[in-house]
Amino acid sequence: MDKIFSDKEYLALAVTEAKKGAKRTWQNPLVGAVIVRDGQILATGYHHQFGRQHAEINALSHLADLKQAQGATMYVTLEPCCHTGKTPPCAKRLVAVGIKRVVIGQLDPNPIVSGKGVALLQAGGVEVVIADYPMTINQAYNFFYRQQRPLVTVKYAMSLDGKINYRTGERTLLTGEAAWQDSQKLRATQQAILIGEHTLQVDDPQLTVRQQILIFPPVRVVVVRDVNQLSPDLALFQTSAPIWLLSQTQLQQTLPQQVTVFVRREWTPQAIIALLTKKGIQSLLVEGGSRLQADFISQNLVDKLVVYVAPKILGGQGLPAVSGPALPELIDFKRFTYQAVGADLRISSQREG
Amino acid sequence: MDKIFSDKEYLALAVTEAKKGAKRTWQNPLVGAVIVRDGQILATGYHHQFGRQHAEINALSHLADLKQAQGATMYVTLEPCCHTGKTPPCAKRLVAVGIKRVVIGQLDPNPIVSGKGVALLQAGGVEVVIADYPMTINQAYNFFYRQQRPLVTVKYAMSLDGKINYRTGERTLLTGEAAWQDSQKLRATQQAILIGEHTLQVDDPQLTVRQQILIFPPVRVVVVRDVNQLSPDLALFQTSAPIWLLSQTQLQQTLPQQVTVFVRREWTPQAIIALLTKKGIQSLLVEGGSRLQADFISQNLVDKLVVYVAPKILGGQGLPAVSGPALPELIDFKRFTYQAVGADLRISSQREG
Repeated sequence: MDKIFSDKEYLALAVTEAKKGAKRTWQNPLVGAVIVRDGQILATGYHHQFGRQHAEINALSHLADLKQAQGATMYVTLEPCCHTGKTPPCAKRLVAVGIKRVVIGQLDPNPIVSGKGVALLQAGGVEVVIADYPMTINQAYNFFYRQQRPLVTVKYAMSLDGKINYRTGERTLLTGEAAWQDSQKLRATQQAILIGEHTLQVDDPQLTVRQQILIFPPVRVVVVRDVNQLSPDLALFQTSAPIWLLSQTQLQQTLPQQVTVFVRREWTPQAIIALLTKKGIQSLLVEGGSRLQADFISQNLVDKLVVYVAPKILGGQGLPAVSGPALPELIDFKRFTYQAVGADLRISSQREG
Repeated sequence: MDKIFSDKEYLALAVTEAKKGAKRTWQNPLVGAVIVRDGQILATGYHHQFGRQHAEINALSHLADLKQAQGATMYVTLEPCCHTGKTPPCAKRLVAVGIKRVVIGQLDPNPIVSGKGVALLQAGGVEVVIADYPMTINQAYNFFYRQQRPLVTVKYAMSLDGKINYRTGERTLLTGEAAWQDSQKLRATQQAILIGEHTLQVDDPQLTVRQQILIFPPVRVVVVRDVNQLSPDLALFQTSAPIWLLSQTQLQQTLPQQVTVFVRREWTPQAIIALLTKKGIQSLLVEGGSRLQADFISQNLVDKLVVYVAPKILGGQGLPAVSGPALPELIDFKRFTYQAVGADLRISSQREG
């Protein structure tokens, strides 16, 4: 006789399915689904890519015969949707095909769905269980809808004496190849990357994710004083991922077509966050320089911190990792993980658990 | 039949013996000895405490009958001494009792012994093998005689943004109880602890090793401007371990008898190190403040670094862990180890091997 799994075990399987969509669902959440009847797994599915069919519909499409759905239980990591977006509402479809019971990993924090998907299912006679499964996926998605702003990660490399550069105005290569690789992986998990103008001019970075082809690369956001002072020869402009320039002046020159310019008298961390929130950006990586990072930190806009520590000392005149406005009070991080990356150490901290 | 061990294995046993003297041999090295004949371990011994008999003599004293020494091999972690100090020369004694072969873990870096112990043994007809065994003991002792100055360890606690205090002139409690315990253990391994006057006044520390009774506690060294301005009520003066005050002025007040005052127009890191070297101090822990530490660092006088990292952010106006003079060039540490201590992280780095 087949082993009958518990709801929790089926949800764990659905989470495994969900993760298959990683890096391709962009501003959509990762979602996985499993269809079970009489202790038999009939089909599994997941949301493959932003704009394509949802996990529930994908799982139904994997049934040998759609009639198998009648009387079956669907395990789905996230509340089924109730609205017509790029695809018709999943909740209606589940009712239509005769799903009898739906076990949901978590409610959708997106207010246009939240609770309404459940209501639609129940109105259709479906039994709904909200399992409150501990979700390790969709951290930024959940944060964005719960806090109504992107999850902000600040990242820097520093020496053992807390410095990022040996001297002001020059770049000290602190960390090794492995840390660089690791930071590329970090970029790949973000919807936007932010830098300041000084970093743009001194480093002339591409701000792309090297060694990975991403369907939805992070938007490269740069705060600049005067967009018309920027050289079209900057490395930033030589690659095709979107670029948002946050300028104090109107654009009067021609820049490549992937560039969008936003104009405002002053780009405070709050103003930047407000723009990104409006644009639906759920995760932001603040890469530098130290002044921009200090501005975000001083406004308490740092939810995660990733610090690469190099076994070096830069000395008393080195540029501090964070310098600028004072914090109203010190920030105490809850979680603290660390791991060697080559000859360096990576420390990750998080405000909430 | 008994297993016959190799020279290396007997030396490993001698090292194990040597370690039994830890924290009690003070400025003497840890030394262990094993006496072997016909594949039989006849006796072991170690240097128990500064001023007491050396390991070789201690091992001989453990023989059932001193005649057993005739024709035996002695394994000893360090070259036997050749001079009459607090005890008569060991090399002569080994010749006298008829030891046939001596296997030495390492030559003594102390110039009054180095090579001369071996010569004395060989002149007495003893076969000598210098095994060049990789020594993990006596790091400071070896460093002191090879570099002719103490091994300098700089220790501080900092936040994830490289700060030691939230604001200048006040103390931020960064790390937890476990880090405090750990730093007490670090103090217990040192022959001297150094702080600056600002730290003395702000922290009013005892600078003792709590929770351990040490026969030779570290000397507490404080750089002060004017020794006559110090309050006799300072916590420092309330405990009996030696105190060396490095002052710019002659002492004109009465201080407790454990205090010695050294006067000099200026106490640069070099002047401090010269004094400690003359006094035979082999290991120095520089505890703070950040300016004193930066002075040592800027003079390249940091051989080991112990950094406790707390999962906190102190912000742009926090006091940097190291602030002061510039370094001629950045210091690149070779070894890098880290470990969780309670909710904090300890990182240890070392210039050499």
